Amino acid sequence: MLLKNKVMQHFWQKSILKKALKYAFSFSFYFSGGDFLVLPLILLNYKTYLQGTGQGAVEIAKACRAVSEESGIEIAVAPQIPDIYRVALEVELPVFSQHLDGIGAGSFTGHIFGKCIKEAGAVGTLINHSERRLTLAEIEASLKAAKELGLRTVICTNNVPTTVAAAALGPDYVAIEPPELIGSGIPVSKADPEVVSNSVKAVAKINPGVKVLCGAGISKGEDLRAALDLGSQGVLLASGIVKAANPRAALEDLIRLV
Amino acid sequence: MLLKNKVMQHFWQKSILKKALKYAFSFSFYFSGGDFLVLPLILLNYKTYLQGTGQGAVEIAKACRAVSEESGIEIAVAPQIPDIYRVALEVELPVFSQHLDGIGAGSFTGHIFGKCIKEAGAVGTLINHSERRLTLAEIEASLKAAKELGLRTVICTNNVPTTVAAAALGPDYVAIEPPELIGSGIPVSKADPEVVSNSVKAVAKINPGVKVLCGAGISKGEDLRAALDLGSQGVLLASGIVKAANPRAALEDLIRLV
Amino acid sequence: MLLKNKVMQHFWQKSILKKALKYAFSFSFYFSGGDFLVLPLILLNYKTYLQGTGQGAVEIAKACRAVSEESGIEIAVAPQIPDIYRVALEVELPVFSQHLDGIGAGSFTGHIFGKCIKEAGAVGTLINHSERRLTLAEIEASLKAAKELGLRTVICTNNVPTTVAAAALGPDYVAIEPPELIGSGIPVSKADPEVVSNSVKAVAKINPGVKVLCGAGISKGEDLRAALDLGSQGVLLASGIVKAANPRAALEDLIRLV
Amino acid sequence: MLLKNKVMQHFWQKSILKKALKYAFSFSFYFSGGDFLVLPLILLNYKTYLQGTGQGAVEIAKACRAVSEESGIEIAVAPQIPDIYRVALEVELPVFSQHLDGIGAGSFTGHIFGKCIKEAGAVGTLINHSERRLTLAEIEASLKAAKELGLRTVICTNNVPTTVAAAALGPDYVAIEPPELIGSGIPVSKADPEVVSNSVKAVAKINPGVKVLCGAGISKGEDLRAALDLGSQGVLLASGIVKAANPRAALEDLIRLV
Repeated sequence: MLLKNKVMQHFWQKSILKKALKYAFSFSFYFSGGDFLVLPLILLNYKTYLQGTGQGAVEIAKACRAVSEESGIEIAVAPQIPDIYRVALEVELPVFSQHLDGIGAGSFTGHIFGKCIKEAGAVGTLINHSERRLTLAEIEASLKAAKELGLRTVICTNNVPTTVAAAALGPDYVAIEPPELIGSGIPVSKADPEVVSNSVKAVAKINPGVKVLCGAGISKGEDLRAALDLGSQGVLLASGIVKAANPRAALEDLIRLV
Repeated sequence: MLLKNKVMQHFWQKSILKKALKYAFSFSFYFSGGDFLVLPLILLNYKTYLQGTGQGAVEIAKACRAVSEESGIEIAVAPQIPDIYRVALEVELPVFSQHLDGIGAGSFTGHIFGKCIKEAGAVGTLINHSERRLTLAEIEASLKAAKELGLRTVICTNNVPTTVAAAALGPDYVAIEPPELIGSGIPVSKADPEVVSNSVKAVAKINPGVKVLCGAGISKGEDLRAALDLGSQGVLLASGIVKAANPRAALEDLIRLV
Repeated sequence: MLLKNKVMQHFWQKSILKKALKYAFSFSFYFSGGDFLVLPLILLNYKTYLQGTGQGAVEIAKACRAVSEESGIEIAVAPQIPDIYRVALEVELPVFSQHLDGIGAGSFTGHIFGKCIKEAGAVGTLINHSERRLTLAEIEASLKAAKELGLRTVICTNNVPTTVAAAALGPDYVAIEPPELIGSGIPVSKADPEVVSNSVKAVAKINPGVKVLCGAGISKGEDLRAALDLGSQGVLLASGIVKAANPRAALEDLIRLV
Repeated sequence: MLLKNKVMQHFWQKSILKKALKYAFSFSFYFSGGDFLVLPLILLNYKTYLQGTGQGAVEIAKACRAVSEESGIEIAVAPQIPDIYRVALEVELPVFSQHLDGIGAGSFTGHIFGKCIKEAGAVGTLINHSERRLTLAEIEASLKAAKELGLRTVICTNNVPTTVAAAALGPDYVAIEPPELIGSGIPVSKADPEVVSNSVKAVAKINPGVKVLCGAGISKGEDLRAALDLGSQGVLLASGIVKAANPRAALEDLIRLV
C-alpha cells in the first residue's frame, strides 16, 4: 500500500497530467489577476526579518512570483504591514497582512484596520499568529471583519484542540504551528507529524470547508512533500526562505517534490 | 498681568516679527526636506477613521502640507501604518507612525518594526497611545529602538504622574491626553487645564529637554491657543480635523490664533 | 402548544415529583460533600463588588447555601480569588475561581495556578470571562490545567461563533454573555433570546456533552425561567444578587419559577 | 579604601552594636504587629512553585518568621494570591501580594482588588513583576490604589531607565531585576553590578524617598552582601529559597553576611 503510494507519487511527479494541471492553475492565476488562491498554498511570512524589510520585501516577492509562474504553484507573501502597499504595487502576487484587528473605522490608534490593508493591496490576512496572539473574541471579530471585506483568512493555532476551535469559526484556512518548533529548523512534518494529521482529521470532521496549512520549521522540498502527504493543503513558512542566501533557489528546492 | 498678556498676545499675532519667524521656520522646513520639527507641533492622528484611510490619507496630508506652507507652522501626520509609505511618497511633510514595537529584526509576526516604518518614510512615532497601551518595559524598548533609528518620539500619557514617568525616559515629546476626553469634543485645555499646566511644570522639573504636547478634544483655534498658553508646545489631535467636512478649513481655523 | 407548555410548567412547579427530585438532589449534594454540580447551575460571580469582599464573601455564600438547601437547586459562588480559601473553609458549597491561568508550577508571578486554587478549596473555575479575556491558546491551556486537576470548567463567550469555538474545546459548560448586556440590568433572555437559543442549538450540534449557561442582566425569577426555557442549563449572574439589599431574598426570588 | 571597608565590615559583622541594632529592630517588629518594614528588606516571592503552594506557603512563611526573629532582619513573603489569607492567618510576618490591579470595587472579574487582598491580610504588593507586566497607566493606577489603602508598594523594573520612570511615580520601593537573570542562579549583583549601582544613583537623584531593591539570581549570603554593598536596600528573591531542600537553612545562609 505504502509502496503503491510511493510509485503513484513518483509517476505523478513526472506525469504530463501534473504539468497540465500546473499550467491550468498558472493560467487561471494570470487571469484572476493574482488575487485568487489555488491548492496547495505556500504562504511566506516575512516576520520582521531584515532581508524582507522595505525594498527587500519587494525583491523576495519577485522571487516568489517567478517561482510561482514557472511552477504553477501558488505562492503568497505576508510582508510587514508597512510594506504591504509597495509589495502589492510592484509585484503581482497575493499579498497577506501578518495581522488584522477586528475593529472598524473609528478611534483605534495603532490598530490594523481591514479596509486599510485591503486598499493597500492585501487580499488576505493571518489571524492569531503565535507571535501575535489574540483573545478568542478578537479572533472572531478579526475573522468577521476580514470576511466582510472579502479577504482570505488564515487562523494560526498551536495544537489540535485550538485548531478545532479555530475551524469551528469557519476561516478559509487554519494553520497549525507548534510554537516550540517555530524558527527551530526542525520541520513539524518530521518532529510531530501527528499534530498535522490529527488536525486534518479533526477539521474534516468539524468543518470540512476549512483547509489546513501547517508550519514551523519548514524549508525544504521534503518538508513540504511530507506536509502535503499528511493531508495539509499548504504550508506557512518564514525564515527558511526569507533568510536564505538565495530565496529563489530556496523556493525552487521547496516545491521540487510537489 | 493677565491683561498685559492678552495685549502682548494680540500684538504678537499681528506683528511683523511673527511673520518673519514663520517664514524662517518655513524656510528651514523646506531646506530640511520636511523631516524636521519646529515649534509648535501640530500632530494629526488619523486613527482608523474612514476619511483618513487609503487615498484619503494622502488627501488629508496634502491639506496639512498646504496649511503648513502658508502658515509656517509645522503640521505632522500619523496615518494608519499601512498608509505610511504612500503618504510619505506623495506628500512632503513629516509622517509619524501611530505605534512602534520595541523589537528588532527577527521572529515578530504582526509587529511594527522601526526599520520598516523608517524605510516606508516615517520620521517619528507615537508610543503608548491611550488606544494602544504598552507595558513600561515595552515603552522603554520602543523609545530606545526609535532613538537608535533617529526617529522622533512622542510618548502618550494619561495623567500627571504617568507624564512625569514618561518624561523620565527622555523622549522628544510627551503627549498628555486624559482618556475620558479623547474623542469627546471637549478640549482638555478647557475641561482640565491643570492637567496640562501641571504636566508642563512637572516635566520641566524632571527632564527639561522633553517637550509637552496635549491632546483630547482639541479642534478649534481657541483650543490650540489655550493649549499653548498653558505651556504646551503643541497638540495631538484627531477627529476634529480628520472627520471635518473640510479638513483644510478646519486646520486653518485651528491655527488662526497661534 | 405554548399554552400546553405553560400548563405543564405550572403543574411541574407545584408537583410532588418536583419536590421529590429536589430532595434527591439535595441529598446527593450533602453526601457528595458539596463538590458536585447538579442541574440547573446557578453560578454567582462576585466580581470585585464591595459587598462580596472579605467577610462579605462569606455572608453571601451562606445565603446561597441556605437557599440551595431549602430549594434543592445548586448554587455555586465565584468569590474574588483571595477569598476562595475563607469561603471554602466556612461555607459548604461549590466554590469557583473567577479565573485560572493555564500554567503549571514555576516562574509565574501573579498568576493563578490550578493546584493553588484547588488546595484553597475551589472545585471549578470560570475561564475567559468578558472582563478577563484570554487568547485562544491560553483558554485551551487553562482548560487543560483545570481538567487535569478535576476542576469544573466554564468558558465564557460573547456570541454564537465564539460559543461554538469554546464548545469545541470540550469544557463542562460554556456561558454565553453578550458584553453589551453585562451589568446592564437588561436580561439577555429578554434582550437577545436568539443568542441563547442559537448557542444551545449550535453547541448541541458540535459537542452535545457541553452544557450551556447564559448570563448578563439576569436577576429575577422570570429571567432564570426564560433562560431555562431557551434551553440553557443554568445562569451566570452577578450584581443583581451580590449588590442586592438582601441577597437571600434576591436568590429566593430568582429561583421561584424553576 | 577597599581594605578599610572590608575591615570595617568584618568588625560590623561581629560587633555588639550590630546585635543591639538587630534586637532593636526585632523589638519594634514585634510591637508593630509585623506589618512594618525595616531595612534591609528581604522579600521572598513564591511565584507558583509547588513547594510554596497551599500548606507549603505556610511552612515557608514559618521558616521566614523564625529566621527573621533570630536575626532581627525583616523578611516578608509574597505567596500566591489564593494563599495570602491562610499565610497571614497562621504566620505573623509581612505578607505581600504578587500583583495588584489598579481597579476599584465593581465589574472586574478575575482582577485583584486592593481592598480584598488587604482584608485577606496583605500589607503590601508587588506591581509590574517581570512575569506580570502592566501598562504604564495600569502601574500608576495600581500604585495609587495601594497607597490609598496604606499598602506598601514595590514596582518591579527591568533596567535603569524603567527604574527611573518607576521611581518618578513614587512607590516605596523599586525592584530592579534584569529579566535575563531571573531564575538563572547567576546573581545580578555579580553578573551586572552596574545595573544595581546605577539604579541606586539614578533613583537617589530623581526621587530620594524611594528605596531600591534588586533581584534575579540571588540566593547566597554573598549575593545579598554584594547587593547591599552596591547600595540597594534589600532583595527580591524566589527559587533559591522556595525550592531549596531546606528553606530555613537557605535563609540563614542568605543573611549571614548582613
